Amino acid sequence: MIKQISGNKTLKIGIIGTGAIGQDHIKRCANFLSGVEVVAVSDIDKKSAQNAISTYGLDAKAYESGNDLIQAKEVDAIIIASSGKTHAEYILSGIEAKKFIFCEKPLATTIEECQAIIEAEQTYGKRLVQVGFMRSYDRRYQELKKIIQDKKLGQILMIHAAHRNQESPENFTSEMVITDTLIHELDIFRWLLNDEFVTVSMIPIRKTSKAPKGLQDPQFALLETQSGIRINVELFVNCQYGYDIKCEIVGEEGVASLPAPAAVSICQHEKRYDQILANWQDWFLEAYNIEIQEFINECLVGKLQGPDAWRGYMATYVAEFCIESQKKGQEIAIPVLKCPDFYRSDNKIE
Amino acid sequence: MIKQISGNKTLKIGIIGTGAIGQDHIKRCANFLSGVEVVAVSDIDKKSAQNAISTYGLDAKAYESGNDLIQAKEVDAIIIASSGKTHAEYILSGIEAKKFIFCEKPLATTIEECQAIIEAEQTYGKRLVQVGFMRSYDRRYQELKKIIQDKKLGQILMIHAAHRNQESPENFTSEMVITDTLIHELDIFRWLLNDEFVTVSMIPIRKTSKAPKGLQDPQFALLETQSGIRINVELFVNCQYGYDIKCEIVGEEGVASLPAPAAVSICQHEKRYDQILANWQDWFLEAYNIEIQEFINECLVGKLQGPDAWRGYMATYVAEFCIESQKKGQEIAIPVLKCPDFYRSDNKIE
Amino acid sequence: MIKQISGNKTLKIGIIGTGAIGQDHIKRCANFLSGVEVVAVSDIDKKSAQNAISTYGLDAKAYESGNDLIQAKEVDAIIIASSGKTHAEYILSGIEAKKFIFCEKPLATTIEECQAIIEAEQTYGKRLVQVGFMRSYDRRYQELKKIIQDKKLGQILMIHAAHRNQESPENFTSEMVITDTLIHELDIFRWLLNDEFVTVSMIPIRKTSKAPKGLQDPQFALLETQSGIRINVELFVNCQYGYDIKCEIVGEEGVASLPAPAAVSICQHEKRYDQILANWQDWFLEAYNIEIQEFINECLVGKLQGPDAWRGYMATYVAEFCIESQKKGQEIAIPVLKCPDFYRSDNKIE
Amino acid sequence: MIKQISGNKTLKIGIIGTGAIGQDHIKRCANFLSGVEVVAVSDIDKKSAQNAISTYGLDAKAYESGNDLIQAKEVDAIIIASSGKTHAEYILSGIEAKKFIFCEKPLATTIEECQAIIEAEQTYGKRLVQVGFMRSYDRRYQELKKIIQDKKLGQILMIHAAHRNQESPENFTSEMVITDTLIHELDIFRWLLNDEFVTVSMIPIRKTSKAPKGLQDPQFALLETQSGIRINVELFVNCQYGYDIKCEIVGEEGVASLPAPAAVSICQHEKRYDQILANWQDWFLEAYNIEIQEFINECLVGKLQGPDAWRGYMATYVAEFCIESQKKGQEIAIPVLKCPDFYRSDNKIE
Repeated sequence: MIKQISGNKTLKIGIIGTGAIGQDHIKRCANFLSGVEVVAVSDIDKKSAQNAISTYGLDAKAYESGNDLIQAKEVDAIIIASSGKTHAEYILSGIEAKKFIFCEKPLATTIEECQAIIEAEQTYGKRLVQVGFMRSYDRRYQELKKIIQDKKLGQILMIHAAHRNQESPENFTSEMVITDTLIHELDIFRWLLNDEFVTVSMIPIRKTSKAPKGLQDPQFALLETQSGIRINVELFVNCQYGYDIKCEIVGEEGVASLPAPAAVSICQHEKRYDQILANWQDWFLEAYNIEIQEFINECLVGKLQGPDAWRGYMATYVAEFCIESQKKGQEIAIPVLKCPDFYRSDNKIE
Repeated sequence: MIKQISGNKTLKIGIIGTGAIGQDHIKRCANFLSGVEVVAVSDIDKKSAQNAISTYGLDAKAYESGNDLIQAKEVDAIIIASSGKTHAEYILSGIEAKKFIFCEKPLATTIEECQAIIEAEQTYGKRLVQVGFMRSYDRRYQELKKIIQDKKLGQILMIHAAHRNQESPENFTSEMVITDTLIHELDIFRWLLNDEFVTVSMIPIRKTSKAPKGLQDPQFALLETQSGIRINVELFVNCQYGYDIKCEIVGEEGVASLPAPAAVSICQHEKRYDQILANWQDWFLEAYNIEIQEFINECLVGKLQGPDAWRGYMATYVAEFCIESQKKGQEIAIPVLKCPDFYRSDNKIE
Repeated sequence: MIKQISGNKTLKIGIIGTGAIGQDHIKRCANFLSGVEVVAVSDIDKKSAQNAISTYGLDAKAYESGNDLIQAKEVDAIIIASSGKTHAEYILSGIEAKKFIFCEKPLATTIEECQAIIEAEQTYGKRLVQVGFMRSYDRRYQELKKIIQDKKLGQILMIHAAHRNQESPENFTSEMVITDTLIHELDIFRWLLNDEFVTVSMIPIRKTSKAPKGLQDPQFALLETQSGIRINVELFVNCQYGYDIKCEIVGEEGVASLPAPAAVSICQHEKRYDQILANWQDWFLEAYNIEIQEFINECLVGKLQGPDAWRGYMATYVAEFCIESQKKGQEIAIPVLKCPDFYRSDNKIE
Repeated sequence: MIKQISGNKTLKIGIIGTGAIGQDHIKRCANFLSGVEVVAVSDIDKKSAQNAISTYGLDAKAYESGNDLIQAKEVDAIIIASSGKTHAEYILSGIEAKKFIFCEKPLATTIEECQAIIEAEQTYGKRLVQVGFMRSYDRRYQELKKIIQDKKLGQILMIHAAHRNQESPENFTSEMVITDTLIHELDIFRWLLNDEFVTVSMIPIRKTSKAPKGLQDPQFALLETQSGIRINVELFVNCQYGYDIKCEIVGEEGVASLPAPAAVSICQHEKRYDQILANWQDWFLEAYNIEIQEFINECLVGKLQGPDAWRGYMATYVAEFCIESQKKGQEIAIPVLKCPDFYRSDNKIE
C-alpha cells in the first residue's frame, strides 16, 4: 500500500495550525511515521505553536505566521490544519513557493477560491496540492471500491448511508452539517462510484431535543448521480450513542456494507454487547496514518497521487448546491463540470 | 401471547381461495393450530378446491362459489385468500351473514370498497373483520413496538427500511410494488408509531436489468408522519440474493434495528457466512401461525382484537396517494382521516 | 415438518405432574396445538392438579394418582412431567396399559430401570415411549445435522460446546449438573453425529463464588466418540448473564456454529447490544411446541418416530460414567452397547 | 500508545535473517516506521541479503554473518529473524556487544539456552532483549487485558481458545504445533491473566486427512493455572478455511470474546458473508507495526518495556512440558519457577 521510498531521505515539514487536528498530525509525524521531520510550526495563537513544539519534543521553529512558514527555506512541504477560511490563501502561497501542500478539508470555503487554486496549480503545471479526505485510505472503503470496480454487485443502483456524531459543538449550524459533515460523503461517493452528482434534496427531519438551538438535526441528503444512482444520507450530529458511519451499497446482484470497527464482545446482565467508538479520530485512526505516510512518500519521490484539488473543488461545489437546497427546501439540479485534462490524466477518481 | 380459550370448542372454518397462501392457511389449520376445523373450501378453479381437500385430508365440502361457502350453515368463520379484487364482495357478504372474517391484505382494492366495508361493519355494530397484516404478530416487530412505547429511544425521529424480494412475478407492475409490497410497511409503521402519514414521495431508482420489462424496480418511498417523523423505504423486488426486511428506528436517545432470522454460521473457503431465506413464508412463518391462532381464539370468545378494517382501509388509502406520487413524480400531501370511535375504542393501533 | 393427520381426530391426553414443565405442556395443548384435548391431570399435590384445571379452563378430571390416570379409559396418551424418580414406574404402567407415553427426560434415573423399560417395550412389540429431548426439534440443530449428513464440513473432528444457565436452584448438586444439564448434550451429540461415546473425563474448574455451597460449578466434560471425535462441553449453571447454549462443530473442511436466537439490536450509550434470554423455555419455545405437536400427530396415526427409549437409556447410561469420572477425578472408558434391532429398524439416530 | 521520542534521533538497525518475517520487518522499517534506518543485513544465503537491500532500496551493508553484523559499529540495535536454533548464539553475542536486541519467538529452543540468556542479561545489569510476542500489542487483546484487570468479569474461571491456520508447511511436525503455534497462547495467557501454568495435557484429536503424513492435527491443549483457571486451546493448522484466532474468557460475572477483524459484509446468492483472512500477517498487521515502533522508540530512550527474556523463557519452559505430555499421552505437572527480581521490577507481566 505504501509506496517504497529510498531509505535515507527525510521530508522536512511545516505545520500551520496547532489545534486538535494539527496536533494529531504533529504527533503522528513525530512518533509514528517514516521519512518525515517536523521543522516548522505556526498558529494564530503563538503560544499554542510554542506549546506544540515542547509537548512533542520537536526540533522545530515557531513562525510568526503561516506565510512566513511557507516561505521558510528549510520547509519542504506544508500541512495546513488551520481554520477553513484561511486555506485558500495558504494554498495559493504554497503553490507560488512551489511546495507540496497537504490541506485538511475543505480545500476552500468558496467556489471562487477553489477555482483560483485549480488555476494556479494548472499554471504551475504539476500537482502540488492534496486534500485531507482520509476515508479513501480506509481499508474498508477500499474493499468496497474494489467490490464495485470488480463488478461483484453488478451495476450499482443505490446507496444508503448515515453519518452520526455523538454531539455537535455548541455553535454548530445547519449549514455546517453540509460543509463539515456531509462533505465527507460528497467526496467518498464520487470516489467509490466514479460518477458525478446531478441533483440534491436536503430534507429536514423532526428535530432532536438534544441539538443546540437553531441547529436542524437530523437531516437527510437525497442525491442522484449522472448514471441514475440514488444515494440517501442520514446526517445526525447529536445522536448521543457514539460515532457511527454506515454505507450500504445496493447493486443488481448483491449488497455490500461497511462494517463497524471490530470490538471485544461482552456477555453480561442479559445483554451481548460491544463498545461503540465515541469519535472519528479512533474510527479512522489507521486511515489518517496511511494518508499522511503516503503523502510523505509521494513528496519524497516528487509525485502526488492522493485526493487532488479537483476532488476538493467538487466537494465544495456540490456542497453549495446542498446549501441552496437546504435554504429553498426543494430539489436543486447540479450542473456537471468537465474535469480538466490536467486532473484527469494525473488523478482520475480511482 | 395466545389468549386462553375453553379447551373443547372448535371453530368451523371455511376458506375461500386455494392458491399458495390459501393452502398455507389450510395446512396450518389442519396440522398445527388449536381449536379449528376446516369444513368448507372454495376456489374459482373447482379442481383446486377438491385437490386441497384430498391433499390435506380434510373432512370438508367444496363449494361452488365463495358466496355459497359464506352462506353455509356449518361455517362459523371465513378466511379469504382469493385475489384482491374479490375481497370487498366476500367481506360484505360475510358481514351480512354475521360471520367472523379473516381477509388477506388488501382489505379491498379501492377506497370506495374499503369505505363500504367500514360502514357495513359499523352498521352491524360489532367487529367482524380482521385484515391479514401478519407482521404485527412477529416477535421482533413486537419488541420494536415495546421499545418505542417504553420510550427507550426517546422521541422517534426517523426510520430507514427496506423490503427486498428475490424475484418478482413476470407480470408484476410498478403499481403493485405499492399495493402488494409497500402495503406491509404502510401498515406496520402506523402500528409501530401510532401516527399517521401526511406526505409521500415515490422516487424511481436506476432500474435493475433483472426486473421484468416495464417494471420500475427498485423504488424509494419517502414518507412523513403527522408528528414529523421521516421514513424512507427501499422497495426492491428483484434483488436476487434473497428475501430481506430491514427496519432501523432512529430516536433521540438511540437506535433499534430488526434482526434477520438466526441461522447457522459457517466458516468455509475464506468466508464466514449464514444462509439468507429465499421467501417471506419462512421469514414470517411463526407470525402467520400466531396470527391465525389468535384469530381462531378470538372468534371462539366472540371478540376480535387483531388488525381491523380501519387498518386495512388506511393502508389502501395511503397506497392511493403513493400511486398518485408515483404517476406524477412529485410529493403528494395525504389528508389525515379521523378514525371513527367504533374503531378507536375497540382497537387502537396498539 | 409436521406430519399430516386426518383433520378431525382428537388425541385425549392425560398429564402427570403439574409443576412448571407440566403446566407448560398443559398450556400448549390447551391453547396452541392441534388435534389434542387434555382430559386428565394428576399431581402428588392434588390442589396443584385442581388449580391447573381451573387456570387453563380444562374440561378434565383430576386423578388421585398417576397410576389411576394411566388406567383411565378416556385417556389415549400420557405425558409424564413428574419428578425423575417416578418416571420408570409410570412408563412401565403405561406400557402395560398399551398407551402412548411422552416422558420428560430422564427416561429413568437408573440403568436397571431403563433396561426394564426397554425390555417391556420390546416385549409389547411396538414403540410406545418417547423421551423429551426437545433439542432435536430445534430448527438450528436440525440445520447442523443436515450440514453434517450432507458432508458439507467433510469428516467431523471435534465439537466445542457450552451449556450455561443464569442461576441454579439452591439445592442443585454437582451430580445434577450431569443428570439434568449435561444430559441434553449427551443425547444431542449422539443424534448429531450418529456416533457413540467411548470415554469421558469430568474436569472441575475454579469454582465461581456465585454457586451454592457444595456445588462444583463450572465443570468441563471432555468426551471421545467411537470414531475419534473429541467433544468438550463447558457446564456453567450460575453464569449470571443469561441462558446460553453454544455448539461449534469443527470438520476437515469447515466449521459450523449454532446461532443465538435473533434479537433486536440497540445502539445506546456507546454500546451496540442485543438482549440475551434468561431461560431455556424461551430459547427452545418453538422446539417444545413442535415436539409435542409431532407426538400428538404420531399418536393419532399410531406410529411414534421421536426420541425413543433407547436414546433415553443411552443418555442415562453415559451419565453414569460421567458421574463415575466426576467422583474418581479420572478418565473413564464407556463400553459401547449394541442397539437392539427393535430400536435400530424403527428409529435410528437420524 | 507510542511513547514519545525526541524528533530527530534515528535508530540504526541491523536485521539478521531475510526470510519472510525478516523482509516484513525490513519493509516496515524502510517505509512505515519512524526514527529508524536499516543499515545492515545478513542471511545464511548471502544472495537473499543482497536482494533484500536492492528490493527495498536500502542504504545498507550486507554482512557475511550474523555475528559480523552484531559487531558492526554503525549498528545500534539488532532484529533477529533467523531460524529458531540460531537465536541463542546471536542473542548472547548481542548482549556481549551491549546492543538492544529484538528476537522473533522463540527466545531459544532449549531451556538451557534460555537460562544462559537470562543470566547474561542479568550479569550485564540492564534489559537488552525483547521477544517477538506481537499479540500483546494487538488492540483487541489489550482490551481483553483491561477488562480482566478492571475486574469487569469478576474472577476469571476459564478460557476457550482456538488457533487455526489454513495450511501447515509440508514438513510441519506435531512438536512444532507446540513450539511454533501454541507458543503464542502460552505467552498471551500468562500476560492476560498474570498467572502461571501448573499442569498441561496435550490431547490428540481425530486426524484430518488434509494434514501432511505424520502430523497430529488437530490437537487440544488443556492447561491449568496456579489460581485454578482452566484453559482449553484447539490447535488446528490445516483447517482449510483461513486463519482464525478465538479467545473467550469466562468470568464469574460475564464473558468476553476476541472479535475477528472487521470486514465488509456482502449479501449474495442467499448468503450473508464476510471474508476471512488467509494469514496471520494480515490479522496482526497493526500489532506488528506497533511492536517494532515501540521497540525503536524504547531503544532511542534507552529503556525496553516490551516482552522480556523471562517471558520468552517461560514460553519455551512450558512448551517443554507440553511436548512431554504430547509424547507420554498424559497430564504433566509444571513446577512454577520464581521470577528473578531483575525481571519482576522492570517488567511485570502487565
